[in-house]
Amino acid sequence: MSKPKGFEKPTGVRDYLPYAVKKLRKIERNVLKCMDRWGYQQIMTPTMEYYDTVGVASSTSDQKLFKLLNNRGTTLVLRSDMTAPIARVVSSLLKEESLPIRLSYHANVFRTIEEEAGREAEFFQTGVELVGDDSAEADAEVVALAIESLKSAGVSSFKIAMGHVGFLHGLFEEIVPGRDDDQESLKEGLLRRDYVGFRNTIRQLNLTEAQGSVLDGIVRLRGGKEICEQALKLSSNTQARASIDHLCKVWEVLEAYGVSEHVLIDLTMIGDFSYYTGMTFEGYASELGFPVCNGGRYDNLLQQFGRAIPATGFALKTNRILDGVQGIQDTEEKRVLIQYDTDRRQEGLAEAARLRSEGCIVVTELVGGGKSVSAEQNVNNEETGYSDVIHYMTKK
Amino acid sequence: MSKPKGFEKPTGVRDYLPYAVKKLRKIERNVLKCMDRWGYQQIMTPTMEYYDTVGVASSTSDQKLFKLLNNRGTTLVLRSDMTAPIARVVSSLLKEESLPIRLSYHANVFRTIEEEAGREAEFFQTGVELVGDDSAEADAEVVALAIESLKSAGVSSFKIAMGHVGFLHGLFEEIVPGRDDDQESLKEGLLRRDYVGFRNTIRQLNLTEAQGSVLDGIVRLRGGKEICEQALKLSSNTQARASIDHLCKVWEVLEAYGVSEHVLIDLTMIGDFSYYTGMTFEGYASELGFPVCNGGRYDNLLQQFGRAIPATGFALKTNRILDGVQGIQDTEEKRVLIQYDTDRRQEGLAEAARLRSEGCIVVTELVGGGKSVSAEQNVNNEETGYSDVIHYMTKK
Repeated sequence: MSKPKGFEKPTGVRDYLPYAVKKLRKIERNVLKCMDRWGYQQIMTPTMEYYDTVGVASSTSDQKLFKLLNNRGTTLVLRSDMTAPIARVVSSLLKEESLPIRLSYHANVFRTIEEEAGREAEFFQTGVELVGDDSAEADAEVVALAIESLKSAGVSSFKIAMGHVGFLHGLFEEIVPGRDDDQESLKEGLLRRDYVGFRNTIRQLNLTEAQGSVLDGIVRLRGGKEICEQALKLSSNTQARASIDHLCKVWEVLEAYGVSEHVLIDLTMIGDFSYYTGMTFEGYASELGFPVCNGGRYDNLLQQFGRAIPATGFALKTNRILDGVQGIQDTEEKRVLIQYDTDRRQEGLAEAARLRSEGCIVVTELVGGGKSVSAEQNVNNEETGYSDVIHYMTKK
Repeated sequence: MSKPKGFEKPTGVRDYLPYAVKKLRKIERNVLKCMDRWGYQQIMTPTMEYYDTVGVASSTSDQKLFKLLNNRGTTLVLRSDMTAPIARVVSSLLKEESLPIRLSYHANVFRTIEEEAGREAEFFQTGVELVGDDSAEADAEVVALAIESLKSAGVSSFKIAMGHVGFLHGLFEEIVPGRDDDQESLKEGLLRRDYVGFRNTIRQLNLTEAQGSVLDGIVRLRGGKEICEQALKLSSNTQARASIDHLCKVWEVLEAYGVSEHVLIDLTMIGDFSYYTGMTFEGYASELGFPVCNGGRYDNLLQQFGRAIPATGFALKTNRILDGVQGIQDTEEKRVLIQYDTDRRQEGLAEAARLRSEGCIVVTELVGGGKSVSAEQNVNNEETGYSDVIHYMTKK
């Protein structure tokens, strides 16, 4: 391996120059303000956590965790999401807080990138967790808030695909009961959206024609509310049917929120994370062509931190939104250059202070006395970007 | 070593609950806005950097760096400050930018805590770098901006102690020329403010009485502008005298800014960092009893990244300010609870949306249908913190 050169930075991480920072900060500010108005309070947790607690509980696969050792030889991880750290806090510092607890965050998270070209090793997520409420109302609240958050972030056109992990669990258990490997193969195909592979798996399972056609039918279970009725016809399994009932209730609440136009039912969705236990969803922006948020219910996570309570939430993929949304409008900030000589320095600096107190951006510069006056020649030039130049000089 | 318990977090890192986040965010917002108005543009860099580039260049001692290996076996560090990463960016992405370059940041940085009880392993710094200007004007600008930034952060009473590393370098070179170990011992005593140790070192140096008394006199070189004149009498060394001349010029500019009342000259100050090359300063808050910012000129850092240009800057110790300043005033946010039953859900949610669009914080809750109504009983109770509760229910 070659030694990194003087100005190199690691693969998969980025520098944000001022324009990008402005854009990112605006998304952050607007989304957090939106979450705040829905009663979600912001929390911050450490970048480093214990591997044995948060690392193990996180939804990120072990080999994607950044690990390091502290001075005592204990393994730490750089957080790979905020859901597990928040579960830790809810189970410790906030354990006396009355439920439900509504928390929001904007944080950088870390995943080793391995072979995946173009993947980021450090990126931002902006999200919420609603802890201690297992109702359809709570699931609908986080979906509706995800929709509002995407709008606040400047994503103008998007769809939320909503599913339920219990439907496929139940349906597979009905058709290939106890055959865990076969169930895994079926899920794997759906997870990768590899429908050819999925159908091949079905053919290898030695099922009745009726059973095969039920499984075949799964890939069509994407659309509006009517999908729920179609799904109910496919399965008599209790878990599968209860899952669909739950989704119908969530849909009903989303209609009351007036946001169901943004939502599709997608029962083929497995969800990236083994820890989802109920409703799951993903947001897709039409203009961006990749997921911009995901979320769902994870009722088994908090018990790993000693507090067995349900939870649901979502995270925006903030970096993808940053790269995808239109540039920010330059707010018409007044940028002023004040040039002075030593005789009139005090006047020049006083005027700078006055203009700054009015909200102007003011750069000050001593000219003469051997100093360059190059900036002076660039006045009102696009490169300098100053809307005004003021001189405090004894002789011009 | 014992395995960490379920809800433990590593030593030296902290969780910020909503109240602390609000306070920290307010400091961040106000200070960055102040820096912005002085023409400093915000930049963000990765949490991880190469050890061989930024790690080695940073002012942090090697054993205090958090190190980890990436997949390729290259050593990475968690950034220990923002100065070295910004030097990297100025030397690469911004190498075509015209000078001077003004950049600001608010970032978490990392230092291993070793045996130092109570030290934080992850903490925030908010600061600026002014790159490409070696004048006294530039040094004064960052000191004046540090003063404005501390005010913006809510630190009401503070002093900036300003010195110059060249003065002691020059004076020691005059009195114990070439005796690096002796010079180090003298600096060590001043760095630790161990004046007894400092005088003991002087006695062991076999100096003339006059020389000894010059060194003895150093510890008295703290005060107003008059200190510069006293210092000029102590040394005929060129570097020492040039350093004092420079400080006088900086002082003159600070007077023009109208901020010299906040500034003391302290020529006993060594500065924590071996990379400072000129003026250095530290800010002390009267009510807090510990440093709240430090900064100075570091003209040799950027050449390590291939761009030999001067630079000066400072960083606020944001966490210390957070812990030290008065709590934030609760802005009189209206927090509303809207309770509804299923019949009037749509009305309730519509009213929530309307109130949120007006800037209210609104939590919604379905009551009845098996749901708890406990919150209802807590209305206007301090614990719930709602200023208003609105019901959308068919029957009370």
